[in-house]
Amino acid sequence: MAFVHFNGLRSLQISSRGCIFNPGSGHTRSDISNNRCSAVKACIKQPDQKVHLESKLNSVLDSVKWDEKGLAVAIAQNVDSGAILMQGFANREALATTIASKKATFYSRSRSTLWIKGETSLNFINVHDIFLDCDRDSIIYLGKPDGPTCHTGAETCYYTSIFDSLNKPQAEENNLALTTLYSLESTLSRRKEELLAPQQGKPSWTKRLLLDEKLLCSKIREEADEFCRTLEENEDESRTLSEMADVLYHELVLLIHRGLKFEDVLEVLRCRFAQSGIDEKNSRKPKTVK
Amino acid sequence: MAFVHFNGLRSLQISSRGCIFNPGSGHTRSDISNNRCSAVKACIKQPDQKVHLESKLNSVLDSVKWDEKGLAVAIAQNVDSGAILMQGFANREALATTIASKKATFYSRSRSTLWIKGETSLNFINVHDIFLDCDRDSIIYLGKPDGPTCHTGAETCYYTSIFDSLNKPQAEENNLALTTLYSLESTLSRRKEELLAPQQGKPSWTKRLLLDEKLLCSKIREEADEFCRTLEENEDESRTLSEMADVLYHELVLLIHRGLKFEDVLEVLRCRFAQSGIDEKNSRKPKTVK
Repeated sequence: MAFVHFNGLRSLQISSRGCIFNPGSGHTRSDISNNRCSAVKACIKQPDQKVHLESKLNSVLDSVKWDEKGLAVAIAQNVDSGAILMQGFANREALATTIASKKATFYSRSRSTLWIKGETSLNFINVHDIFLDCDRDSIIYLGKPDGPTCHTGAETCYYTSIFDSLNKPQAEENNLALTTLYSLESTLSRRKEELLAPQQGKPSWTKRLLLDEKLLCSKIREEADEFCRTLEENEDESRTLSEMADVLYHELVLLIHRGLKFEDVLEVLRCRFAQSGIDEKNSRKPKTVK
Repeated sequence: MAFVHFNGLRSLQISSRGCIFNPGSGHTRSDISNNRCSAVKACIKQPDQKVHLESKLNSVLDSVKWDEKGLAVAIAQNVDSGAILMQGFANREALATTIASKKATFYSRSRSTLWIKGETSLNFINVHDIFLDCDRDSIIYLGKPDGPTCHTGAETCYYTSIFDSLNKPQAEENNLALTTLYSLESTLSRRKEELLAPQQGKPSWTKRLLLDEKLLCSKIREEADEFCRTLEENEDESRTLSEMADVLYHELVLLIHRGLKFEDVLEVLRCRFAQSGIDEKNSRKPKTVK
């Protein structure tokens, strides 16, 4: 094991995937071990590399435009869904700890301490990458949350719509800030719930599909075929977009019918990223003969 | 026309969709007119409603936990792709202006002035909803950008990966903070570009599909069929996710082949939201007979 000594942190260790982590914290270390972030022992033999890495890390941390309090805005975003999970502030140590531990870490202004998101709830945000903005004073922690991010149990901290507050007197504060696909997914879920109380809600195409698996599957096949035909018959681009919207909607209904989330499909795709499509196909188990 | 007078702003007008806008600014007003945000003239006859709305707006603005400088963090997010476009700060007037104009508006700390994003570049961010976090000190402007958000011409301001900076000595600062689907889309686009210089890059399944429309379409139909069969044959949920990942990947390849973006598909879906699926289907023009 080789550790890199570093300003203001305990010691840092370099992994084979380039991650640097802090072995001083048992918790953080075991989490990283779970992430299969194995150590590069070659560092022991290469003191120059240690110094080089320490220098690069300091250089990155120096390049951030910390404000007069030594802070920068840090936004945690779900790497799959794109949902903004929470926003806090990071100081130099919080950013260094996040780089090292790959757990989103903030500086609590009210408690004047470092704060690893999840240290109490165990709902850590596992950071896949960290981005600086063009002014280098705003940070994105792009990661996967272990569970709900908000202390209220909500998936994200953003569930109060100002437009709802202004327009709907009785609006409850449980309207998550959802982007288009997840807003549609949420609507489809509500249609499924309405089926449990048939007197509620209006008739809808989604409900018809949810109640009729044969119709749903025939529609998916039909829409996939029409999507392909926009290419085969060289139709307008707008037709391709429209047919893709059709097939995606019907596919989402099937996912909802099975109680699955689109975010989980994206996780499957993300896990395949590391290898080429050809290698990935070759590595699959043969499908069961039906 | 009826205007509601409001602290610190000029006058506000209430639209039929509940939007409130500032008729003092010609530019902003014409933009809103373009958004078909028609005025509710009933306000003229209902002074109580005017007072009520002013009161509600003040109440919302009062509820924000402005910091000691009167600011809160404001994050602009693409309503379709979920991309974090930029982050700035809002004061009371900037938030009120955003509510009124539906153009993302910030307070520039360096220039000590209100700043409508796009006032120079014309790349406005058209705000669809605004969210407060659980602490009411962080704001999301969820909207659709008219063009690239960053002053550098980049789609978003976040294109500097810290992990790339640490691990790839020659990394260029053009690695946008992309979530899973858009990261995949970006990879597929690179494969398409590589086809222009066949000596570059390795063989890939994506390239084979891009070069063979017949294969691509047959794969989309095949994968859509396999996705349906996971329901019809009651396969494991993991099979449904895996098959959906397969079909989505192949559909993305077709979009890339046609030079289209997944974000544009989501825009189509968003524009359909306003009406029920049954109404939407009934409203479509008959397809051309082929």
